[in-house]
Amino acid sequence: MKYYLLIIPFILASYSVKAQAKDDSLFIRKIYDQALSKGQAYEDLRFLCKNIGARLAGSVPAQMAVQWGFEKLKSYGFDTVYLQEIQVPNWKRGTKESAFLTTAKGEIIPLDILALGGSIHTNGTMLSEIIVFQDLEELRRAAPERVKGKVAFVNQLFDPTQVNTFASYSTCASTRHWCGIEAARKGAVAVIIRSVSSSTDHHPHTGGMAYADSVHKIPGAAVSTLSADLILKHSLQGKLSIHLEMDCRTLPDVVSYNVIGELRGKKNPNKYISVGGHLDSWDVGEGAHDDGAGIVHSIEALRILKTLNYRPNNTLRVVLFMNEENGNRGGISYAEYALDKKEIHIAAIESDRGGFTPRGFTCDGTSKQVQLLQSFDKLLKPYNLHLFEKGYGGVDINPLKKKYNNICLFGFYPDEQRYFDLHHTEADVFETVNKRELELGCASISSLIYLLDKNL
Amino acid sequence: MKYYLLIIPFILASYSVKAQAKDDSLFIRKIYDQALSKGQAYEDLRFLCKNIGARLAGSVPAQMAVQWGFEKLKSYGFDTVYLQEIQVPNWKRGTKESAFLTTAKGEIIPLDILALGGSIHTNGTMLSEIIVFQDLEELRRAAPERVKGKVAFVNQLFDPTQVNTFASYSTCASTRHWCGIEAARKGAVAVIIRSVSSSTDHHPHTGGMAYADSVHKIPGAAVSTLSADLILKHSLQGKLSIHLEMDCRTLPDVVSYNVIGELRGKKNPNKYISVGGHLDSWDVGEGAHDDGAGIVHSIEALRILKTLNYRPNNTLRVVLFMNEENGNRGGISYAEYALDKKEIHIAAIESDRGGFTPRGFTCDGTSKQVQLLQSFDKLLKPYNLHLFEKGYGGVDINPLKKKYNNICLFGFYPDEQRYFDLHHTEADVFETVNKRELELGCASISSLIYLLDKNL
Repeated sequence: MKYYLLIIPFILASYSVKAQAKDDSLFIRKIYDQALSKGQAYEDLRFLCKNIGARLAGSVPAQMAVQWGFEKLKSYGFDTVYLQEIQVPNWKRGTKESAFLTTAKGEIIPLDILALGGSIHTNGTMLSEIIVFQDLEELRRAAPERVKGKVAFVNQLFDPTQVNTFASYSTCASTRHWCGIEAARKGAVAVIIRSVSSSTDHHPHTGGMAYADSVHKIPGAAVSTLSADLILKHSLQGKLSIHLEMDCRTLPDVVSYNVIGELRGKKNPNKYISVGGHLDSWDVGEGAHDDGAGIVHSIEALRILKTLNYRPNNTLRVVLFMNEENGNRGGISYAEYALDKKEIHIAAIESDRGGFTPRGFTCDGTSKQVQLLQSFDKLLKPYNLHLFEKGYGGVDINPLKKKYNNICLFGFYPDEQRYFDLHHTEADVFETVNKRELELGCASISSLIYLLDKNL
Repeated sequence: MKYYLLIIPFILASYSVKAQAKDDSLFIRKIYDQALSKGQAYEDLRFLCKNIGARLAGSVPAQMAVQWGFEKLKSYGFDTVYLQEIQVPNWKRGTKESAFLTTAKGEIIPLDILALGGSIHTNGTMLSEIIVFQDLEELRRAAPERVKGKVAFVNQLFDPTQVNTFASYSTCASTRHWCGIEAARKGAVAVIIRSVSSSTDHHPHTGGMAYADSVHKIPGAAVSTLSADLILKHSLQGKLSIHLEMDCRTLPDVVSYNVIGELRGKKNPNKYISVGGHLDSWDVGEGAHDDGAGIVHSIEALRILKTLNYRPNNTLRVVLFMNEENGNRGGISYAEYALDKKEIHIAAIESDRGGFTPRGFTCDGTSKQVQLLQSFDKLLKPYNLHLFEKGYGGVDINPLKKKYNNICLFGFYPDEQRYFDLHHTEADVFETVNKRELELGCASISSLIYLLDKNL
């Protein structure tokens, strides 16, 4: 056999790889053109924020958001649109929420405060001395007799020197999660934390706190970073007491839904690639970046593929998860339903880090799966995507991992500098989302879905 | 000679390279820690924006900014702080600036309008028919009899599909620059352009327009993108006329200054690395991103090195350039002074693309100089810097290129998605600058200066 006959297949293969890369490159350009010149995401987000607003699971606005999501997915003409029933917790903030500091000199100073999600009420107004801890560790080491009968204030700082704000968040969010249990163990009557925030301002940041069956429950709240600085300053000048009133409460669970839409796969209809964010938000602000952005990213990512007449190999599914913020019932149920129905889930993508300018994706998978993501580098670099790393997928899609050994999870990674200024506050509103940044996120996610569908 | 004796120098060299990289890495970490936990830039910018505000060259606030810059550099204890005298143009917007559309049906519609910088006045109220062009090319091709006596409106769109907004800007800015000359050549009595903007809103964007000695001068203005859409819409329904009044004027040149501070080089005191932005801004808004951010980036970059007791090899110089927006007299004079004094300029860095989250630097130099920049990749990647490409340095430092053959120019490159929403408008205010994003910019520039000083 002539030597050149051996070479021909290699030449053909190489030609085919290059042709494929060119096709992919052209198609991704079309995705970006569609997102940036005919995008729907920004106006969809405006409606979700301005006409529905804050939408904690169990609330009327959350139910309105379910209905909006369902109609929206139908309006975009997906093959199948349906609701997945779940039970969700039903915590209500109530109408009374205030805190006043009384200093050693008798000055009375109002604090910016929000009850932490899940907190019990204060049973009228509580008056107690404040004891200050710099972090949870100091509280854990404290002698119970120093804490007993007092309000424990944990002033855990958000480390400004970490470039990755999620790393700083992680430490502080752990304090928020455990503060009620640890303070109650020491005999505190309530716990207050410094808001988990990268900004110094008047916005308190809410978020979930935990209770344990073995420890009695105490009320928990967060104060703004400026209020925290005030508490600290006055605590150095003498004994401090606080009047605290919160009438939040937990009602029985109620029914809610994940909202699902599909583009049916032509080759492997029972193999699924999911993309989603969470439809619920905390009950303050408008849930614009957290996670209205993720919702419209996900819807728009599939709308673009449909508009471009892309016929997927696998079934592409957009999932608007319910109850990420205080229970993750939507994410857990979604994974259970999937296994029950014998669906084969090969990948899932989540957007829950805000609607900021895209940097890339994290990949929670094997090193081979991370390499696949990194192999898209050249195709995505022209769009300023550069971060393709091993890392977390997302809270909503995480339960799929326990059900599917080979699934690969991806987390959309936008620039992370502004997120924790706004996260879980009154300030997380539509106006803080930039149209182009949001649209670039949609295009990035749509491009990843396209590439995964062709390569998995 | 034993073989291993030959190897030793290589081992030592390799060890030394690694040790150097480790030293650099540790020092850059210190730069970021200083910027993010003890940064001065945000408060400096607040003062410049809120206590001085808009500061067009030749104005009283521009003179206040010179004084502020001088005192600020002295307060940070630089080795030498001085003013460099220049003559600057003195254009004044005046107090009357309005435009009303009259539609074919007789409706009267107010437009959001700003005179373009350098424009002549309208000599009272001008009333004329409007003729619409989609771009400058269409105006250039128009028959003069169609244009004569009318107000030419050029509705050049900002291309949303380009990810790099500076590319879209470049096309539109060229229209803004030439519109007055081209429209006058066709006999128009005034020219109006669609604002050079990536956003659809009510903010008109000003900016410089040019006149030519060979063509008579006509007034020029920009309308907001929403007003432009209105003009277009009504122009399709019949003849449109406009009442236009602007009493802007150009007064004789006045004296102003570049403000300069230095950290003297211990090894090569007559070799210079400059870093700067422009101290002037347009006369609307607060010049926060354009270019207050560049000013505080530059000051802070050197303040950090001084605070960390870094002793530079070469003289490091911060330059607060005057008059970038409407003449570049500061940049041109700086290069002339430098050559006159026989200074040897080896590098210059400019920040004039806003105070957004950093992506990297462009390098206007030889391929070897670009490679040097790219060799810093590993050291800067942990700080999310990923863009190290051949590209423009900046308007202020560009004249140095004509004077110094071997100089290398660098342009700081932050994320570019939001810049042209705000650029040259009332909306370019302090509140649109994020503290962390600004501080990361300072640290990025400070790190580049450190690396250049050690490697050039």
